[in-house]
Amino acid sequence: MFLFGDLANIEVVDVIEFLGTIAFAISGIRLASAKRFDWFGAIVVGFVTAVGGGTLRDLLLDVPVFWMQASRYIWCTVFAFVFVLFFRKFLVHLNNTIFWFDCIGLGLFVVVGYEKALALDYPVWVCVSMATITGIFGGIIRDILINEIPIIFTQELYAVACILGGILFGILHYAEVDLLIIEVATAIFVVVIRVWATYYKIRLPILKGED
Amino acid sequence: MFLFGDLANIEVVDVIEFLGTIAFAISGIRLASAKRFDWFGAIVVGFVTAVGGGTLRDLLLDVPVFWMQASRYIWCTVFAFVFVLFFRKFLVHLNNTIFWFDCIGLGLFVVVGYEKALALDYPVWVCVSMATITGIFGGIIRDILINEIPIIFTQELYAVACILGGILFGILHYAEVDLLIIEVATAIFVVVIRVWATYYKIRLPILKGED
Amino acid sequence: MFLFGDLANIEVVDVIEFLGTIAFAISGIRLASAKRFDWFGAIVVGFVTAVGGGTLRDLLLDVPVFWMQASRYIWCTVFAFVFVLFFRKFLVHLNNTIFWFDCIGLGLFVVVGYEKALALDYPVWVCVSMATITGIFGGIIRDILINEIPIIFTQELYAVACILGGILFGILHYAEVDLLIIEVATAIFVVVIRVWATYYKIRLPILKGED
Repeated sequence: MFLFGDLANIEVVDVIEFLGTIAFAISGIRLASAKRFDWFGAIVVGFVTAVGGGTLRDLLLDVPVFWMQASRYIWCTVFAFVFVLFFRKFLVHLNNTIFWFDCIGLGLFVVVGYEKALALDYPVWVCVSMATITGIFGGIIRDILINEIPIIFTQELYAVACILGGILFGILHYAEVDLLIIEVATAIFVVVIRVWATYYKIRLPILKGED
Repeated sequence: MFLFGDLANIEVVDVIEFLGTIAFAISGIRLASAKRFDWFGAIVVGFVTAVGGGTLRDLLLDVPVFWMQASRYIWCTVFAFVFVLFFRKFLVHLNNTIFWFDCIGLGLFVVVGYEKALALDYPVWVCVSMATITGIFGGIIRDILINEIPIIFTQELYAVACILGGILFGILHYAEVDLLIIEVATAIFVVVIRVWATYYKIRLPILKGED
Repeated sequence: MFLFGDLANIEVVDVIEFLGTIAFAISGIRLASAKRFDWFGAIVVGFVTAVGGGTLRDLLLDVPVFWMQASRYIWCTVFAFVFVLFFRKFLVHLNNTIFWFDCIGLGLFVVVGYEKALALDYPVWVCVSMATITGIFGGIIRDILINEIPIIFTQELYAVACILGGILFGILHYAEVDLLIIEVATAIFVVVIRVWATYYKIRLPILKGED
């Protein structure tokens, strides 16, 4: 029972990480293709979208960069590329599914980012920063590479979902809730905010009037 | 008297750092707003403008990233955002004041950048590089994020002021001048060059004529 | 004889590194000038083009950043700038020569990148990644700074040459071939692929057809 629970737990996290990485990579590959990048360019942009946030986080925390410790992130990106290559005509019909993978991946990235900073005894605001950077920075580099203004800065509560998820993690951790519950609650919270904001097109206001 | 002098000294440096950080953040927030970034996007661009140079410096020097050691840089950015939010219609009239804060902040950033490299026993040219990176890199990332060519590369002696300030620091340090005097002299030197170059619209020449 | 061989060896590698650094810097300086960057801007873009890939590699590997250990990379960039400044009208006629320097530099960068990761006992795929990053990332930052889509993602087998060179290094190293032979074979292999792909305009296909 214990073994099974443990195994099941590992599998679920792994599957979520795979799905999240693939969803992030697909978004990079599609946008790069729309800009007429070649195959390699598309793979690079996909990979950077998937691992860029975690890479900056690890550099800032001065810990080993996560994707250099295991080759699965590169394989996930290559898989995403092959998938887009063969099924690109059907991708439009999968937009909804990919959106869900993307949201679930974001929830996981926020949890992983928070925990990496927490393990180094950083205060809450650094943990929240690292959770947010893990979630959004890959998309920012993606948009810089394809020479567009980062969509993250105008999209429906993307970064705000990361920040609020991080704050929830901090509150629950302060209240000494069981870690597994915190992780699940944070990830679900991030997903709910993203889905809710996207469905109702909720956005942050824009600063204006200076002209 | 000693205590008071010490306190006064700390306060002056702190106030300068606050003003510099706020001035840099305001420049990022205004430019992001002009590109219709949402509130969060504006705060991120403001923060990156203020801390981007120091972050790259600390990564290159492999020392703990400065803004992760104290939350005041984030608070300065949030303050700058609230300030722009409420007073944006009057900001045009404050352009002169903000310009002075920006110059003074730049002078301080150059001094801090130089000293961080010096403390690790790097040679003069590395110290000057770190001083310059601290001063200019935040503005470069700001302009990349808003998808513009970095204005630093065409502006009135911005980077040159950093380099000359760094060289002055190196000369005075070699001449074993008292550290406090070096710091003040370097910062004032940077401010004077910037103000002078802006007032008389002094720019570096442009390479041309190849085609 | 041994001493002479040793000396000759060092000299050859040094000369190749100089030529490669200068060729990379020249490409950055020319593109920056075409965008009306001032002298300093051109030098920065040239420097970043030459050292950007190695800098990211060293940050990812968490080793001292190479150009902070020796001032020759900055001098090479300044030399490249002075060269462009005085001979820019003749540069068009030197395009072929500069292209060769660029290819030879790329071959060397791939070898250096692979060996840096190998010295830290990283697996083959990390070594290949570091070889590729060393070769291509400088050009990517260059194109981000001048606000263009990175040409690397559409150019003739630029990154592919790095990857294939890295894989060849890995195979020869696995076969326990003498290191000097591996280095020379890898560098020549990279140069040959680049020259061949450029001559016959061989490119990777583009992903398309989604819309």
